[in-house]
Amino acid sequence: MEFTIYLAGQIHDNWREEIEELVKEKELPFNFVSPQTNHDLSDNIGENILGEQPGKYYKDQATSNINNFRTTVLMNKADIVIASFGEDYRQWNTAMDATSAINQDKPLIIIRPESLIHALKELSNKANVTVSTSEQAVEVLEYLFA
Amino acid sequence: MEFTIYLAGQIHDNWREEIEELVKEKELPFNFVSPQTNHDLSDNIGENILGEQPGKYYKDQATSNINNFRTTVLMNKADIVIASFGEDYRQWNTAMDATSAINQDKPLIIIRPESLIHALKELSNKANVTVSTSEQAVEVLEYLFA
Amino acid sequence: MEFTIYLAGQIHDNWREEIEELVKEKELPFNFVSPQTNHDLSDNIGENILGEQPGKYYKDQATSNINNFRTTVLMNKADIVIASFGEDYRQWNTAMDATSAINQDKPLIIIRPESLIHALKELSNKANVTVSTSEQAVEVLEYLFA
Amino acid sequence: MEFTIYLAGQIHDNWREEIEELVKEKELPFNFVSPQTNHDLSDNIGENILGEQPGKYYKDQATSNINNFRTTVLMNKADIVIASFGEDYRQWNTAMDATSAINQDKPLIIIRPESLIHALKELSNKANVTVSTSEQAVEVLEYLFA
Amino acid sequence: MEFTIYLAGQIHDNWREEIEELVKEKELPFNFVSPQTNHDLSDNIGENILGEQPGKYYKDQATSNINNFRTTVLMNKADIVIASFGEDYRQWNTAMDATSAINQDKPLIIIRPESLIHALKELSNKANVTVSTSEQAVEVLEYLFA
Amino acid sequence: MEFTIYLAGQIHDNWREEIEELVKEKELPFNFVSPQTNHDLSDNIGENILGEQPGKYYKDQATSNINNFRTTVLMNKADIVIASFGEDYRQWNTAMDATSAINQDKPLIIIRPESLIHALKELSNKANVTVSTSEQAVEVLEYLFA
Amino acid sequence: MEFTIYLAGQIHDNWREEIEELVKEKELPFNFVSPQTNHDLSDNIGENILGEQPGKYYKDQATSNINNFRTTVLMNKADIVIASFGEDYRQWNTAMDATSAINQDKPLIIIRPESLIHALKELSNKANVTVSTSEQAVEVLEYLFA
Amino acid sequence: MEFTIYLAGQIHDNWREEIEELVKEKELPFNFVSPQTNHDLSDNIGENILGEQPGKYYKDQATSNINNFRTTVLMNKADIVIASFGEDYRQWNTAMDATSAINQDKPLIIIRPESLIHALKELSNKANVTVSTSEQAVEVLEYLFA
Repeated sequence: MEFTIYLAGQIHDNWREEIEELVKEKELPFNFVSPQTNHDLSDNIGENILGEQPGKYYKDQATSNINNFRTTVLMNKADIVIASFGEDYRQWNTAMDATSAINQDKPLIIIRPESLIHALKELSNKANVTVSTSEQAVEVLEYLFA
Repeated sequence: MEFTIYLAGQIHDNWREEIEELVKEKELPFNFVSPQTNHDLSDNIGENILGEQPGKYYKDQATSNINNFRTTVLMNKADIVIASFGEDYRQWNTAMDATSAINQDKPLIIIRPESLIHALKELSNKANVTVSTSEQAVEVLEYLFA
Repeated sequence: MEFTIYLAGQIHDNWREEIEELVKEKELPFNFVSPQTNHDLSDNIGENILGEQPGKYYKDQATSNINNFRTTVLMNKADIVIASFGEDYRQWNTAMDATSAINQDKPLIIIRPESLIHALKELSNKANVTVSTSEQAVEVLEYLFA
Repeated sequence: MEFTIYLAGQIHDNWREEIEELVKEKELPFNFVSPQTNHDLSDNIGENILGEQPGKYYKDQATSNINNFRTTVLMNKADIVIASFGEDYRQWNTAMDATSAINQDKPLIIIRPESLIHALKELSNKANVTVSTSEQAVEVLEYLFA
Repeated sequence: MEFTIYLAGQIHDNWREEIEELVKEKELPFNFVSPQTNHDLSDNIGENILGEQPGKYYKDQATSNINNFRTTVLMNKADIVIASFGEDYRQWNTAMDATSAINQDKPLIIIRPESLIHALKELSNKANVTVSTSEQAVEVLEYLFA
Repeated sequence: MEFTIYLAGQIHDNWREEIEELVKEKELPFNFVSPQTNHDLSDNIGENILGEQPGKYYKDQATSNINNFRTTVLMNKADIVIASFGEDYRQWNTAMDATSAINQDKPLIIIRPESLIHALKELSNKANVTVSTSEQAVEVLEYLFA
Repeated sequence: MEFTIYLAGQIHDNWREEIEELVKEKELPFNFVSPQTNHDLSDNIGENILGEQPGKYYKDQATSNINNFRTTVLMNKADIVIASFGEDYRQWNTAMDATSAINQDKPLIIIRPESLIHALKELSNKANVTVSTSEQAVEVLEYLFA
Repeated sequence: MEFTIYLAGQIHDNWREEIEELVKEKELPFNFVSPQTNHDLSDNIGENILGEQPGKYYKDQATSNINNFRTTVLMNKADIVIASFGEDYRQWNTAMDATSAINQDKPLIIIRPESLIHALKELSNKANVTVSTSEQAVEVLEYLFA
């Protein structure tokens, strides 16, 4: 039995690699999918495919279509979602992915620094588990086989 | 035929009153429900009912339960959701409510200043309509009867 | 017991009025909702609310958002959908509304001239009933109380 | 991880082969299913199996049953739907397949010539991505692994 | 609080009137809907509306469309379904309505003579309650307020 | 806007009356439904309607059918569920009703004495709010209008 | 791509073997599951496992539980359902399985002799395809790959 | 065709091993998943991962999150659920898992001693099959292939 995990969330540190390495070390049967983590590509894929747009607003429309396409395809395949929030940016797409996981009954782990406890309290309340570090998230995953 | 609208979102200006007044002037058949808009009460309702908690983290847990209870009861009654994002705070509970509206096929209008276009692009892409002002939101509502 | 009927479809003759009058004559307990039937308004509502767009493609994007908002709000209220296809135009939004009715288990009557039997065969196969005239559609409605 | 793509839509040029070749060249992990693309067989399969029918109307009924059977079986297996609209014919079955994909939360790419932008605006608004060429559709698919 | 009851099933004795009278006597807050109980009309409504058909098979197709339309509209409004099976005929449409009630989580009471216990055992197993007489069915309804 | 509340749970003290009175004092717009609270009737309704059964096991089967019928009809009408657990008995039907509320996205308040915190921890984790007294439950209800 | 087919229905001739052989001859990628086709075992499995029951009614209750368990497990695995009706017996469990297939959007083929056209008309109307012979059913299956 | 079985329920005797051994002897194609069966670990996993909590109530909150995470991940993978109730403890989490299986249309077998017949009657009524021993449960499983 293998499980697919969607790694939603911030792209400003190497939390995905941390989780993947810890999982590899412990030989846990998980494979991983994620949104586009190259920030520039994620901003430009709309214009790359559909051509130049008449301004930023239209550029954002074009690119969000394709980012949401990717997210939906890969989230549909996931058994578990981990959503990581960092201190920078609004990360509303992360909140959207986390909420969709909840609404689709896909088990959800949130990772966030303690500084974000208050701002995330309603979302954390609906997640299965909220932790502060990648190590803790992997301990939760490991518990599936304990 | 009457419609109930859930007014999700920021509580830092009087956008709810603006919308309710415009709707009243135009004699449109809408009634409104909303999350707790008294910020202090929304932070303290957990301790008010369940008693003092051993620290901020537990206080937030207690209060988020009851805020989510209110949101779920009232969103279940809503035919339409309007979610308003402002420039302050993270507003992840607003993003959660907006995403739940999308996932439950409840028509969604997002209101946001132009400064937030980029940060909201993926969520806007899934909303039915995104506008910049309360007046525009009411024009969209008015179109139901045009 | 009252029933709400969504009248999807073409706006090139007065079929909606025909149905509403026949229903009134027979004193049947139906009320009606429909998409925007003013073609110009339906094309321009996007620019009317959101301001001028940089070309036809963007104008169509803006206006389709708001038309789909209206359709979703009103279809959600409907107990029955009648979709009328005419000989002009592609009418893909009508096909979309009819399919959504099928997918949501909302009973669906299709009205179409005999010239369209072949082109509509797969959609007719999934509709509850397909007829050729407004009179026949109302006879089907009347059968609910026969 | 492999993905199955349902190729809905027009059968008047070789767009399916184009996509399959591009995907093969790029060694992407997709396999493909599609509706009946032999137009004559698609019109006659009802009579082939159920025997001669008493006229065109009944022939169309018989054959639409079996075409919809095929579509439902194969769409149920698909992770992604691509719907291609051409300039000929009404293509209402394509609009039906595309709408069913939307309603089942199966990610949808629409391909259409620019001449059809206006007629498809409401359906495009609900699709994940709308493009003009097979090459662009494959670029969107490729983005899943970028 | 009022409840709507769909009275599915056989049309060969006056069980519907029995139930309606008992409910009236006991002043219970139920109203009733049902399939077409005029057998001839139920067989002919297809030809009545759509015109003469080329044989019995096609006549049955035409009329079943419209009977299923009626059933779906009225079942969608029902809070409770009572399905009565008698000793005559196959009554597969009754079995279909009863199964749809089960699948839609609409509470279901089956009424059947003791001679049909064995033949109905799998369906009874999924119904909420199976009884032998109209009086018993009304006693079950009355228990809602006991 | 009125809300219907299903009062699931123990029948060994007057917690239902307490809640109804508090709600009446505060003039809150709630009405109430509940399972059978007459324990004897709840045990005997099966034999009362279906006749004497050949032993306790069969008596329990007969009566559970009719209790579940009542629960399903009334829970389907409820906007909110309150489930009260006491210190006596196993109360597995209460746990079943509470879980069904969760699974149907009906907001759920659990009331339980502090002695049951540990035993109810997994169910409480999925409820919206867990409190210790009827007064607290009504304070949560009151918050909907605060 | 392999498909699992649930063969619901009558057990009085060898139609299942016929279909399995035809499929094998044509080398189509189908595997098959079915309800219990040993009539005696299907009647007695309840008593076999749970012990002797106090009469026929209770024997039927016990056995129907276990037959429905089997049906649900295997239908959940099926991509396609074929339901065969014969001229003997009521076959209400077959009607139940066919209706559940419809309600779960599992494509359904009905096989029935022409003598049953009238009695099955409403159920046939909701099935994807209705045919008269096993050969025709396999031709419909073959069309998936034509 | 392989089936995954979730073994919910009590952890006070070796019923899981009994079932797994019987299945192995009979060479049936089942594999098994289960909740945490180490009672201490199940109570402490919250503090193990999230750190010491300020009292029992908070310790229970922390640990229930992670137990429910495990249950949801593994139940989502299960084709069948077996829930075993014993005479000790309240076992409300078992009742919750059993009810979730019912609500998700996952076939459910309950095992319980005869002393619990009365207390479990409403839950048994919704389960597919209720038996008294592990041997009987395996006989039900074996019937899938009989």
